[in-house]
Amino acid sequence: MRVEIREVGLRDGLQNEAPVSLEAKALLLDAVVATGVRRVEATAFVSPRAVPSMADAEQVAALLHRWPGVRFSALVASLGGARRAVAAGITDLEYVVSAGDGHSRANVRIGTEEATEQVAEVAAVVHDAGGSVEVIVATAWDCPFDGPTPPERVLRIVERACELGADELAIADTIGTATPVRVQRLIGAVRDRVGPVTLGAHFHNTRGAGLACAVAAVGEGVLRLDASAGGLGGCPFAPGASGNIATEELVYLLQDMGIETGVDLQRSIDAARLAQDVVGHLVPSNLLRAGDRKR
Amino acid sequence: MRVEIREVGLRDGLQNEAPVSLEAKALLLDAVVATGVRRVEATAFVSPRAVPSMADAEQVAALLHRWPGVRFSALVASLGGARRAVAAGITDLEYVVSAGDGHSRANVRIGTEEATEQVAEVAAVVHDAGGSVEVIVATAWDCPFDGPTPPERVLRIVERACELGADELAIADTIGTATPVRVQRLIGAVRDRVGPVTLGAHFHNTRGAGLACAVAAVGEGVLRLDASAGGLGGCPFAPGASGNIATEELVYLLQDMGIETGVDLQRSIDAARLAQDVVGHLVPSNLLRAGDRKR
Repeated sequence: MRVEIREVGLRDGLQNEAPVSLEAKALLLDAVVATGVRRVEATAFVSPRAVPSMADAEQVAALLHRWPGVRFSALVASLGGARRAVAAGITDLEYVVSAGDGHSRANVRIGTEEATEQVAEVAAVVHDAGGSVEVIVATAWDCPFDGPTPPERVLRIVERACELGADELAIADTIGTATPVRVQRLIGAVRDRVGPVTLGAHFHNTRGAGLACAVAAVGEGVLRLDASAGGLGGCPFAPGASGNIATEELVYLLQDMGIETGVDLQRSIDAARLAQDVVGHLVPSNLLRAGDRKR
Repeated sequence: MRVEIREVGLRDGLQNEAPVSLEAKALLLDAVVATGVRRVEATAFVSPRAVPSMADAEQVAALLHRWPGVRFSALVASLGGARRAVAAGITDLEYVVSAGDGHSRANVRIGTEEATEQVAEVAAVVHDAGGSVEVIVATAWDCPFDGPTPPERVLRIVERACELGADELAIADTIGTATPVRVQRLIGAVRDRVGPVTLGAHFHNTRGAGLACAVAAVGEGVLRLDASAGGLGGCPFAPGASGNIATEELVYLLQDMGIETGVDLQRSIDAARLAQDVVGHLVPSNLLRAGDRKR
């Protein structure tokens, strides 16, 4: 069995940090590519006012030719973002739709339904450029504004997204509140609704259950998981620390479970250490401090 | 479904910390009892030279009458420890046997087999006092000295322990290296070997997979899990930080999965905060910083 890890440290991990230099991002890209990971979400084309650390998206895009053989993608939250990404040469996009209406309006000033309908235009833009679009359903289990997300809202988004041209899907626990049973139920229901489309999952370790959710998702047929080097995006000091699951912890977990990832654990720990240096504060990965086990 | 949480923060959590005052331990006991937890491993009767923070075991034992209705226990690693515990009035004991011979010799200067045979005498001492003994198999998946633990070593211990009078069993991932598939296999095999004896599990979050292992163990019929307030025993700064799974994260997880624990999440967060104050450094619980979700 093989599960693909998508490294999202450079996007989700860095987006809430103070901006880091382009040179630091290049070093980090070098390190994550050296781990063996072959999908990397490299940046986001979003409002530079709202997310200053992604303001250099075009410059990051211009670096990516350095690492042939890696599939780089970018996150967008609007048609304008998709156009910017494609103009910058990134044609594999993640387009986010929040299942929580409150979160959607707070993030992109339109509700879930309107954001879902935009899949058509985003898909047209990337398909014209020979690329692909994955629709990520954010706040799929809980919304920080609306509370628990009715599963039917998620199912309607994925169904409609497929009709409108989404090439892949991912289900995201944006605020790190999911646990295995809810993961099984929702992912199982999504799978039933959309059939054989490629389905990824995206978890945060905000309440400690990130890897437990990842295991549950894999059990439901999810074959791609997002993770960030060192658990970038969180910090053991910060209230509400909410990094993604840490890539190296996920690699250890899957490897120990006999699941192939193509990612080297020791290099993944090296990348995590570099990620920590880049942000200049402790990242929440336990494995980074403990290291691999004696084999 | 109900899973019992045993709070081990006062023992496993504090044992590697600088000694804290008896007053601080009493406050922490107050806080954990207030969460609703009804099993608490309160201390260890072990060498005060080797584990200075447990040197006050007799004094801790003398406090426990303050909280009627709670089943307090103590950990021991030798017959002498068992006698001390019983003399101090604690008659429910956890007696540890390391499945890794290297770990056993480093810890108690005798090998696994000899330590296993001591179950008979420990059981006689506690049974004479009207108490009970749980045998905890330490380093059940991996030994820091010997590497991976052959499952047959664990099975031989649990089988022999039952023959020699163990009342309950627990399987412990002492160094936090297990992952769900290995948990399922070993716990399933233990279950097959020993039949219906009460079986607990004890996980550390050293490599991030603690809660994932807990879920796997519950799936194999484990109905009691050890956890420590705040994940005491670990520290986000320390190399090899290896706290137990955090009680409040386990409570959140089980509650969200529809499994009853009788433990109040908010009070469990309060206890974790106090635990952090008691040790005077950050504890590795993410939930402590993130809080419960909006319901």
